[in-house]
Amino acid sequence: MESNVWPMHASRDERGALSIAGVDCRDLVAEFGSPLYVLDEDQVRLTARRYREAYEEAGAGIVYYAAKAFLATAVARWVYDEGLGLDVASAGELEVAVRAGVPGDRIIMHGNNKSMSDIERAIEVGVGRIVIDSFEEIVRVADAASRAGIVQSVMVRVTVGVEAHTHDFISTAHEDQKFGLSLANGNALEAVRRIIKLPSLNFLGLHSHIGSQIFDAGGFEIAAERIVSLAKRIWDDLDTEVSHLNLGGGMGIAYLPDDDPLEIPVMAALIGDIVAKECANAGLVMPSLAFEPGRAIVGPAGITLYEVGTVKLVELDDGGSRSYISVDGGMSDNIRTALYGAEYSVALASRDSAAPVRMSRVVGKHCESGDIVVRDALLPDDIVASDLLAVAATGAYCRSMASNYNHLPKPAVVSVRDGKVTVVLRRESMEDLLRLDPGAS
Amino acid sequence: MESNVWPMHASRDERGALSIAGVDCRDLVAEFGSPLYVLDEDQVRLTARRYREAYEEAGAGIVYYAAKAFLATAVARWVYDEGLGLDVASAGELEVAVRAGVPGDRIIMHGNNKSMSDIERAIEVGVGRIVIDSFEEIVRVADAASRAGIVQSVMVRVTVGVEAHTHDFISTAHEDQKFGLSLANGNALEAVRRIIKLPSLNFLGLHSHIGSQIFDAGGFEIAAERIVSLAKRIWDDLDTEVSHLNLGGGMGIAYLPDDDPLEIPVMAALIGDIVAKECANAGLVMPSLAFEPGRAIVGPAGITLYEVGTVKLVELDDGGSRSYISVDGGMSDNIRTALYGAEYSVALASRDSAAPVRMSRVVGKHCESGDIVVRDALLPDDIVASDLLAVAATGAYCRSMASNYNHLPKPAVVSVRDGKVTVVLRRESMEDLLRLDPGAS
Repeated sequence: MESNVWPMHASRDERGALSIAGVDCRDLVAEFGSPLYVLDEDQVRLTARRYREAYEEAGAGIVYYAAKAFLATAVARWVYDEGLGLDVASAGELEVAVRAGVPGDRIIMHGNNKSMSDIERAIEVGVGRIVIDSFEEIVRVADAASRAGIVQSVMVRVTVGVEAHTHDFISTAHEDQKFGLSLANGNALEAVRRIIKLPSLNFLGLHSHIGSQIFDAGGFEIAAERIVSLAKRIWDDLDTEVSHLNLGGGMGIAYLPDDDPLEIPVMAALIGDIVAKECANAGLVMPSLAFEPGRAIVGPAGITLYEVGTVKLVELDDGGSRSYISVDGGMSDNIRTALYGAEYSVALASRDSAAPVRMSRVVGKHCESGDIVVRDALLPDDIVASDLLAVAATGAYCRSMASNYNHLPKPAVVSVRDGKVTVVLRRESMEDLLRLDPGAS
Repeated sequence: MESNVWPMHASRDERGALSIAGVDCRDLVAEFGSPLYVLDEDQVRLTARRYREAYEEAGAGIVYYAAKAFLATAVARWVYDEGLGLDVASAGELEVAVRAGVPGDRIIMHGNNKSMSDIERAIEVGVGRIVIDSFEEIVRVADAASRAGIVQSVMVRVTVGVEAHTHDFISTAHEDQKFGLSLANGNALEAVRRIIKLPSLNFLGLHSHIGSQIFDAGGFEIAAERIVSLAKRIWDDLDTEVSHLNLGGGMGIAYLPDDDPLEIPVMAALIGDIVAKECANAGLVMPSLAFEPGRAIVGPAGITLYEVGTVKLVELDDGGSRSYISVDGGMSDNIRTALYGAEYSVALASRDSAAPVRMSRVVGKHCESGDIVVRDALLPDDIVASDLLAVAATGAYCRSMASNYNHLPKPAVVSVRDGKVTVVLRRESMEDLLRLDPGAS
């Protein structure tokens, strides 16, 4: 394929039909329906492996896959096979990990408001690390561990006042957000002080997460400087070692051909060097690092296939015109366009076209004018009903945030590898849609 | 209750605990879990009846409940009992209506990209009106009706270049959106010309929908003027009567105490008078009107109950502070705050408090900093874990747009009436969450 946004094993046949790992997209839709999410399994595996290798090289003891990006037992197995752990944020995500056979000690649990049952289940399955997000949680985890008769390893989530996105970051003293304990006001230090007094808790270290869709290492520099200063303070004041430092995720991917995130090993080396330098400056032993990429592993490996239903050329008040191409999904299977103003690349997938392109907008079938999948695209002007479109880089935060708005069923997710197709999540049926309604049966 | 945003049958007992229709919110959460959507059934019924009566008085032959706002068989039955029809936009919504026992002739089907199976199912169940949204659809509906051996009544969705919201509207020649056929460029007239030639279609009239959360009749004036001019043109050029005119929905509700939508009969009378005047000016017989309120019927009758998990006082760089109150739901059960910047009213529900209020933000438990339920609220500073909060006016577009982000189960929806509780939609279980994953069982 012509650009960096398509799956690694995407190709076009002589008539221009898109294949993923040797499977024709038309055959996929014929068998599994449309819309359809398709994952390039080898790409997920390879990217997971690359992240693990590059970040281990940079000082990581473990790389976790951030399950919130997209989770099913198949994906949990792939990344576990490739040597990664799993970052979960609820009892539901934890349950998928457990059923996939991921051992508890390879799992880290996050969340600003874990329920008691989230915590109890985490302890029951032996989750390796629980990331403490509030003072209340210190007591809750300690009590639950104590009742279970175990010592639970924990980390403290620290807000360091850095927020990074793409090529930019902002740096403040405080953070106006729900996560973590503040470095600036002393709450993070106080949390560590309380944790080390509790016999059912084992303090491992600190966690910081600075943003999402990050393209370079700029923001990590200030974050590392601040968090290492806290580690120094913990060593000096509390006589306690920060043996583990988890710097979270947020590594960016290309949605558009011009997007240019740093290469995996380059970003890893930069961050590793930053932390090493800060630790050396502070006179601290380098802690064991951890990272939590989610989108970066699964996002680029996924596409969504849609079937076109109608094409409307709409005149605009400025004298121009726009082609509204309606597909059979929309904001229920991809809320990111409406929610974040996200931009996507889209292509005609079922055939080639030499027709001139025109300004187009790919829209869904929901009863809402904001139901837009791709706001601006140049697409051939001969697109008609029953053509298939492919939207690139939808592997993360599309299926995981999907709804049943307008009572549309959630599409299936299939993976392809070496010409073979596996159902990762089956498509919802009408009975699935109605199963919660006692009056519908 | 102190303001216009709470359900009609909400009250507080002597200790300040919130009841809906005589049922204590603490008992509801104890039985059905938290978060929990609660609907005031009598309010839904009464509001539906008021809409029907007021708009019939203003010239409506039928008022449809717009199912996309929130749909379950119970709600479909209530509004049908109260004399309303149902506006559906997919085969899934249609199926709920059918299973609720709503007869086909009380149903109208919308959608900018109805699938062939949507259309075929609509014809099979005898849907009274299909609203044609594109040229492609004329042929599709005509063919399906012809194959079924029936004559299908249809309307044409017209874009009139008016977009209304709250107290404001904008008016342009063209509309840069996916719905309908343009009045300005002649497509709407052309669609009627094609429809009346087809023996399997019965042209009933025109449909226009100008916006959402509309507080006054300003936008309807221009929309009515334009659509009546089209009706005149259809009469003059095509010798065809527009016997039905559906002006859509979009009637606004109060989310905050200062919100002041027009009273139902006032809005109805204003719109009725506008259309009557325009028809008189054009020398046309007044058509039978129809309207499609959704949010206005179910929105104000619903609340969401949440349990507080953590409370964090976060210092801000301006020297102030903000209380982050984390609840056990979030953007999965109410995406409107993140998606539209929607504002909500929130109150401590499980007890009274005489404590001073402070600037607060109610946030969810998702792994995302944008996971905000109520961005700005003044709440008592003694709120602690296990307190219940109630968010007002969540009856529309919350459950219907709910996701399983972070593998959170969708909350139950219960209705209350005269001290009795009915499950409208049961809460999802862990097995529900995992049922689509072939590797999870």
